[in-house]
Amino acid sequence: MSNPLKLGLAGLGTVGVSVVKRLALLENELAMSAGRSMRVTAVTARSRDKDRGVDLSNCTWFDDPVSLATNDDIDVYVELMGGDSGAAEDSVRAALKAGKHVVTANKALLAKHGNELAKLAEENGVQLNYEAAVAGGIPIIKTMREGMASNAISRVYGIMNGTCNYILTRMELEGLSFEECLQDAQRLGYAEADPTFDVEGNDTAHKLALLTSLAFGTQIEADSIFLEGITSLTTDDIKAADELGFRIKLLGVAQKTDTGIEQRVHPTMVPKSSAIAQISGVTNAVAVDGDAVGSITMSGPGAGGDATASAVVADLVDVARDFKIYPLGRPAAELQPYVRAKMRAHEGGYYIRLSVNDRPGAFASIAQRMAEHDISLESIVQRRSNGYFTNAQSEASEVVKPQAVVLITYETTEEAVRKALQQIEEDGHISAPPQMIRIERL
Amino acid sequence: MSNPLKLGLAGLGTVGVSVVKRLALLENELAMSAGRSMRVTAVTARSRDKDRGVDLSNCTWFDDPVSLATNDDIDVYVELMGGDSGAAEDSVRAALKAGKHVVTANKALLAKHGNELAKLAEENGVQLNYEAAVAGGIPIIKTMREGMASNAISRVYGIMNGTCNYILTRMELEGLSFEECLQDAQRLGYAEADPTFDVEGNDTAHKLALLTSLAFGTQIEADSIFLEGITSLTTDDIKAADELGFRIKLLGVAQKTDTGIEQRVHPTMVPKSSAIAQISGVTNAVAVDGDAVGSITMSGPGAGGDATASAVVADLVDVARDFKIYPLGRPAAELQPYVRAKMRAHEGGYYIRLSVNDRPGAFASIAQRMAEHDISLESIVQRRSNGYFTNAQSEASEVVKPQAVVLITYETTEEAVRKALQQIEEDGHISAPPQMIRIERL
Repeated sequence: MSNPLKLGLAGLGTVGVSVVKRLALLENELAMSAGRSMRVTAVTARSRDKDRGVDLSNCTWFDDPVSLATNDDIDVYVELMGGDSGAAEDSVRAALKAGKHVVTANKALLAKHGNELAKLAEENGVQLNYEAAVAGGIPIIKTMREGMASNAISRVYGIMNGTCNYILTRMELEGLSFEECLQDAQRLGYAEADPTFDVEGNDTAHKLALLTSLAFGTQIEADSIFLEGITSLTTDDIKAADELGFRIKLLGVAQKTDTGIEQRVHPTMVPKSSAIAQISGVTNAVAVDGDAVGSITMSGPGAGGDATASAVVADLVDVARDFKIYPLGRPAAELQPYVRAKMRAHEGGYYIRLSVNDRPGAFASIAQRMAEHDISLESIVQRRSNGYFTNAQSEASEVVKPQAVVLITYETTEEAVRKALQQIEEDGHISAPPQMIRIERL
Repeated sequence: MSNPLKLGLAGLGTVGVSVVKRLALLENELAMSAGRSMRVTAVTARSRDKDRGVDLSNCTWFDDPVSLATNDDIDVYVELMGGDSGAAEDSVRAALKAGKHVVTANKALLAKHGNELAKLAEENGVQLNYEAAVAGGIPIIKTMREGMASNAISRVYGIMNGTCNYILTRMELEGLSFEECLQDAQRLGYAEADPTFDVEGNDTAHKLALLTSLAFGTQIEADSIFLEGITSLTTDDIKAADELGFRIKLLGVAQKTDTGIEQRVHPTMVPKSSAIAQISGVTNAVAVDGDAVGSITMSGPGAGGDATASAVVADLVDVARDFKIYPLGRPAAELQPYVRAKMRAHEGGYYIRLSVNDRPGAFASIAQRMAEHDISLESIVQRRSNGYFTNAQSEASEVVKPQAVVLITYETTEEAVRKALQQIEEDGHISAPPQMIRIERL
């Protein structure tokens, strides 16, 4: 058996501590299956003195992550600090340049600098593993980079933010508002004090950016992702979706089209019978459509110290096994430039909810506008207001009552839907901005 | 870039032809991501002259698989002939001994000889990859052997036979009998002319045997698997399950218990809300419970030429990438002897359907027998016969009409249930053998 693989660990939060515990708990098993033992030899964290419930007395303490990352006494630098710049970026770059393998859970860093970091790893002949960066404990990076290496991928999509899925699940099951569910999520530790990053879709976007590159062999480009959060969803939408046979999920979707690659994060109507619709609470799921295998779906815990540590330690086992693979599945120099498909060219079905003023001719006018843009309607559900709308503002005296009208379109384009809705707004027949949710074919 | 990896392919059925096509279609992509190109240099199959729609003119033809497997001009022997002995066994052994890597989809061979073959691969410093042997296109071997390497596994279970799941799905959706659905499956090519191997659970057992070894680090022991097929299931059972909030699936389950490891294949009641209950038609799914990550579920196509080829080619890419791993996840010499947990000690809930003769005191007697064996009942559904039973045979003249009684027990032991049912039969209150289906906690 070779010498032990020496690990330098930066960040001793929930995940870092769980990694240390796991390495100790499965020490013999891991050494046996990897053919090499692993040992944490050096650590760094914000506070040196905090009691974390793990024995670190045999580890050298570093105040500076960069010094740890480049220290002669480590083979692998494990970055669990987070952040897309500063210490995380500096130390990961320094480690790669110093010929250290890097294992990280840092999606933000990779979404921003992944192309360069992959190149740096290749130039220095070391591994850059990041299984924990996407969907926590689900080995989706390995599945795409290795298990589905024999497929041309046409689409990858998933539920990759547990906070959002928890909120949407509770809104559906209990009929509670977004705000109520968010507060509960915060109380239970499923959401941050400032939840913006989760509920506006940024976290999902970081993860999607990595999967897009793996799926299509393109450079990571997180800034091009179309982003729409879940804050505008109402219980009306959840209920209407339910009645129409759908659930609403915050999906990240990357898809090849004739004009480029769509990368989009938005609330999505998915058929109740689909695998992805069954994913409830903080669970994550990712589905990949390949030309040979068809569709593979993986689900499991997307966050939490132990689940994330599971992925980090699996990455370490791969290093111990001396698995050599390009970080983004192919040489960084061979990654294609990302060509963005215009969101306006997106094709799909749409759910549209309108709060219609009950003027004579309003419905005819709305139907006319849809027809003008070649939008065919699959279903129309109309109901008289009974507290169903809370934001409806009556502007004109001749209005009797606003009515909720829900339209489901057949396949059309985003361009057509946006133009039609703009004109419907201008026509003055609706009393609140229209709600529009994309339907995904599954 | 290194020299091309030279492949010798034995078996040119649906899967073999699909492998050849895939290697051609993605030639450049695979060479780029693997760092090495791949080329089929030699082939063998039953008939040399058949037109298979692929160009094999550059390949050397062999009449004898063993000669091909040991030929100097191949690096990897790809065995796609099938069979747990004869040519498949001889050629795989010969290839390993000759220092060739082996990629195979042959579950029967591995279930029977996997321990020795793994040892042989290790002794000769070559890879033995078999992703396609379990759940077709789903990369479950990679997920367990690598992605979840950092977990102690407590249970693995899944739907691993598309034929059975197709039949059960149609029985449920259309209320058809087992025989009717089987005939349709045969007509559509989802079932063999002799379906025994699928519907009696043997095929699932072969796959389960491999997953058990990976999960618990034990020697493969397929002969110890408890086996119960789906042929005795009636539409009455499917309907009763539905009413009680369950679906019936043929599961393979391997589970650690206090007395050893359970390996069992049997019709299983799973809650309708569970991920595994959503798997319909020929789709496969496998779930793995790990101590760090919790439960990971993977679903996708479990059979078919292209899906299986997807796994075979991914295995080849791993060889081209020079990934070195013990075939069973740890050195063959370190595999623990398999200790069989007695099926009679199995603990769980049970569904019991009885065809009760409507004699006075029959119910009291049945309830008494259950109580004597400490079996508590979670629910009792009783209904008067209305064509519900087709096999009920009235033996005694005082019988008015047999009644269907469905019992759901709380957690108990197999021993208790079997004894109680034996006594109930002996008491003469039922007019047909009792039906018993295990409930799985998910």
